[in-house]
Amino acid sequence: MASRLTQSASAALLCARVCRPAHPLHRTISSFVPGEPERPSMKTTLPGPVSQAKIASLTDVFDTRNVSLLTDYRKSIGNYIVDGDGNILLDAFAQIASIPIGYANTALLAAASTPEMMRAIVSRPALGNFPPTDLEDVLRTGLLRAAPPGLDKVFTAMAGSDANETAYKAAFMWKRQQERGGYNAPFTADELESSMDNAAPGAANGLSILSFKGGFHGRLFGSLSTTRSKPIHKLDIPAFDWPQAPFPSLKYPLDENESENKAAEQLSLAAVEDLLVHYHNKPAAVVVEPVQSEGGDNHASASFFRDLRALTAKHNVLFIVDEVQTGVGATGKFWAHEHWGLTTPPDMVTFSKKAQAAGFFYKNAELRPNLPYRQFNTWMGDPVRSLLFRAIYEQIEEHGLVAHTAAVGDYLYGEIATKLAPKHTGQFENLRGQGMGTFIAFDHPDRDAFLRKVKALGVNVGGSGETTVRLRPMLIFEKGHADILLEALDKAASASA
Amino acid sequence: MASRLTQSASAALLCARVCRPAHPLHRTISSFVPGEPERPSMKTTLPGPVSQAKIASLTDVFDTRNVSLLTDYRKSIGNYIVDGDGNILLDAFAQIASIPIGYANTALLAAASTPEMMRAIVSRPALGNFPPTDLEDVLRTGLLRAAPPGLDKVFTAMAGSDANETAYKAAFMWKRQQERGGYNAPFTADELESSMDNAAPGAANGLSILSFKGGFHGRLFGSLSTTRSKPIHKLDIPAFDWPQAPFPSLKYPLDENESENKAAEQLSLAAVEDLLVHYHNKPAAVVVEPVQSEGGDNHASASFFRDLRALTAKHNVLFIVDEVQTGVGATGKFWAHEHWGLTTPPDMVTFSKKAQAAGFFYKNAELRPNLPYRQFNTWMGDPVRSLLFRAIYEQIEEHGLVAHTAAVGDYLYGEIATKLAPKHTGQFENLRGQGMGTFIAFDHPDRDAFLRKVKALGVNVGGSGETTVRLRPMLIFEKGHADILLEALDKAASASA
Repeated sequence: MASRLTQSASAALLCARVCRPAHPLHRTISSFVPGEPERPSMKTTLPGPVSQAKIASLTDVFDTRNVSLLTDYRKSIGNYIVDGDGNILLDAFAQIASIPIGYANTALLAAASTPEMMRAIVSRPALGNFPPTDLEDVLRTGLLRAAPPGLDKVFTAMAGSDANETAYKAAFMWKRQQERGGYNAPFTADELESSMDNAAPGAANGLSILSFKGGFHGRLFGSLSTTRSKPIHKLDIPAFDWPQAPFPSLKYPLDENESENKAAEQLSLAAVEDLLVHYHNKPAAVVVEPVQSEGGDNHASASFFRDLRALTAKHNVLFIVDEVQTGVGATGKFWAHEHWGLTTPPDMVTFSKKAQAAGFFYKNAELRPNLPYRQFNTWMGDPVRSLLFRAIYEQIEEHGLVAHTAAVGDYLYGEIATKLAPKHTGQFENLRGQGMGTFIAFDHPDRDAFLRKVKALGVNVGGSGETTVRLRPMLIFEKGHADILLEALDKAASASA
Repeated sequence: MASRLTQSASAALLCARVCRPAHPLHRTISSFVPGEPERPSMKTTLPGPVSQAKIASLTDVFDTRNVSLLTDYRKSIGNYIVDGDGNILLDAFAQIASIPIGYANTALLAAASTPEMMRAIVSRPALGNFPPTDLEDVLRTGLLRAAPPGLDKVFTAMAGSDANETAYKAAFMWKRQQERGGYNAPFTADELESSMDNAAPGAANGLSILSFKGGFHGRLFGSLSTTRSKPIHKLDIPAFDWPQAPFPSLKYPLDENESENKAAEQLSLAAVEDLLVHYHNKPAAVVVEPVQSEGGDNHASASFFRDLRALTAKHNVLFIVDEVQTGVGATGKFWAHEHWGLTTPPDMVTFSKKAQAAGFFYKNAELRPNLPYRQFNTWMGDPVRSLLFRAIYEQIEEHGLVAHTAAVGDYLYGEIATKLAPKHTGQFENLRGQGMGTFIAFDHPDRDAFLRKVKALGVNVGGSGETTVRLRPMLIFEKGHADILLEALDKAASASA
């Protein structure tokens, strides 16, 4: 792949995350991926007969009701996903936004076959008790190189849900130590005893995490208590009595609704402050996504997030930015919160999905609890994924893929805004994600049928919220791929008119 | 490895999990592991200078206060763990009981380097939406071959905590559907709305999971609410108001305390029944470990567990057996609950650690919620670990390692009971685990100092509870290894007298 570096990618390599290559769009399809198909190829309706039979049989042992596409990973490559019937689809959904740089990426395959990786698979450490001698090196050459500005430590976890939950645990322990009199203040006998009964004061049942309506932070019990996306995610699961603030509901196009949107953001911030001060279970932290993703790609302005950060500092609660879906380049910055121009970094930034590894970054050493074994579990992450992240990061840097994605996103957004939306009135509503790389979405009045049409045309796309089509291509998505996607969106819209 | 099969292992291969090889103890050290050291070799006190320096440096980016041994996985092999200073220790702790068949196992290294494994690393699926075409085959030739008797379906997860939490979620949804009128009964508008506010009736805040004092089921918010091991695990984390029953505290030796122990078990069962009927947040399930492991290796009789199973059936709550630490052979059965002689299998059996994969087994199709996307997340487990489990299982079967472990455990238990305990009065108290493979433990009056002495002699052992030494060797631990462990225990006890 190195020999395939284009001039623009070399330029990007020099300026790394910040500047954009001069002419990133002159790349043709497959400039990154040797052997990638030239375009989609559909042989059957979906699901085809082979897939149908296999899914029916699989149902005996595995819940298949969520299956979107039975996938042949032996044949999937680059931006293309191949199903059990040999249908070849351009993938603009990327395993729910979790494949960073393409299927069967050759550089990652090389990283996956090193002796180091073999050891990580076979001799898996209990990382807290028996860390590998080279752990610091693996972190410093991998995850920590990608740490958000101002943060320099990492706690690794398994996936997005437990990344968020360990961040929440750190927040609760930090807050309770303050209430107790300081980082090293001792526990009382009452606290020690009541903790074993799940009761206050030992259990911090008077504290909470504040999240936003429409937010999604995972589906385990603590993370689900902060998730406010859809009832189907939450029904019948016990939940903590934690507060939620309204998330600003912006009107589009933004430049025609400035004052109304500003007012919506102020209302949200006022609600946050009220909850921080008055909610009966006091927030220890506020958690927010830079773009509410599962909730329907809801954006807010950079100034909203700056004000939110200031509010958390003012009221001495932690500011947790959930970059599980927005992180690792898709918004045209490595971390989406880099768009905000914060003067004080978040207290914790959580990650997973395209990072393949998971966990949270932080700076304040007091977010490590005051005693060992308070924040602990057997594996504490997976070194297989830390090693893989290092290779992913190297590829992103080497090929300038963040700047590339910013440029491709600008092109894609512009084409939808200036060509598709005017042509198909009402079908590309509330287009959002301008200047946010390929993290683009719009609303469609008959969303699910529209998604099926696009998919039947050979492009895999996903939805979120009630009516939203969300585009989530990989970082190796190029102008040529964008043109194929645009063509499919155009055709599906014509068929929906 | 196949060519190294001993006669007894061949016999074991024929009778698989059930019968024991005739003479498994004639094996010499390293009959399973070519290249394994003959015995421990200590070059420095622990931690040595190299490890000290590396740990100090690592502390800048990673919390090192839980570090037991900075480990060189390049040199660790079979039953031996090597540290950063070249100290070679026999490992009878095995990464908190999570290494099944030895470091750098050659068969697992082969499995780790297949094209299939490379794909699982690089092209990781969102398993619920985009399952691989060969998923059924991977499950049927792997995890499902190892399914506990009577269970035939599996839900995969990432680690023990979320394995338990997804089982709890299944239990809550199952129970609420019953309360609602049946598996397909619709939600009410009030339920849909209140769920988004974390409130009843949509959130099942009137339901609970019943666990036992001393139990450990993980450290995320839901699992931690069922964990009742130590305050340090629970302090400052919000917890659900869920009930706990006393776990019988057996007196040893068992044959001298039969009636008292029977009475303790009856008291526990009576408390369980009382809580099932009267606790204000009604249990949807009871979760229990076959041996309370983190809590101090607390055992109960097979009849206790049979009665517990009967109680759950009587009161229409689910019976979840947490085999995260007990599963995969160490107790001399593949699953520890196979010791109980249940006539009705558990509703769910959770697993992780030595399985390397994680999740829960079940049979009742109604433990799949009635609608898609109720039990769902992005990755839903890790195919890397499912593939690895398959290779682990093949090795266990091929070499008869469960029967082997039962026999080695009998030897180890017998030597401690008849030689060490009488020789060192008071230092091998409450010896437990007879007939439970190598899942053996005892109490020591000065436990932590004793553990340090054993470790300084070149044997890595672990503790649990307040005073317990727990032995957790791998399934490839042989009589020769047991003799080295026994020698170190003897010497450390002499030095502690």
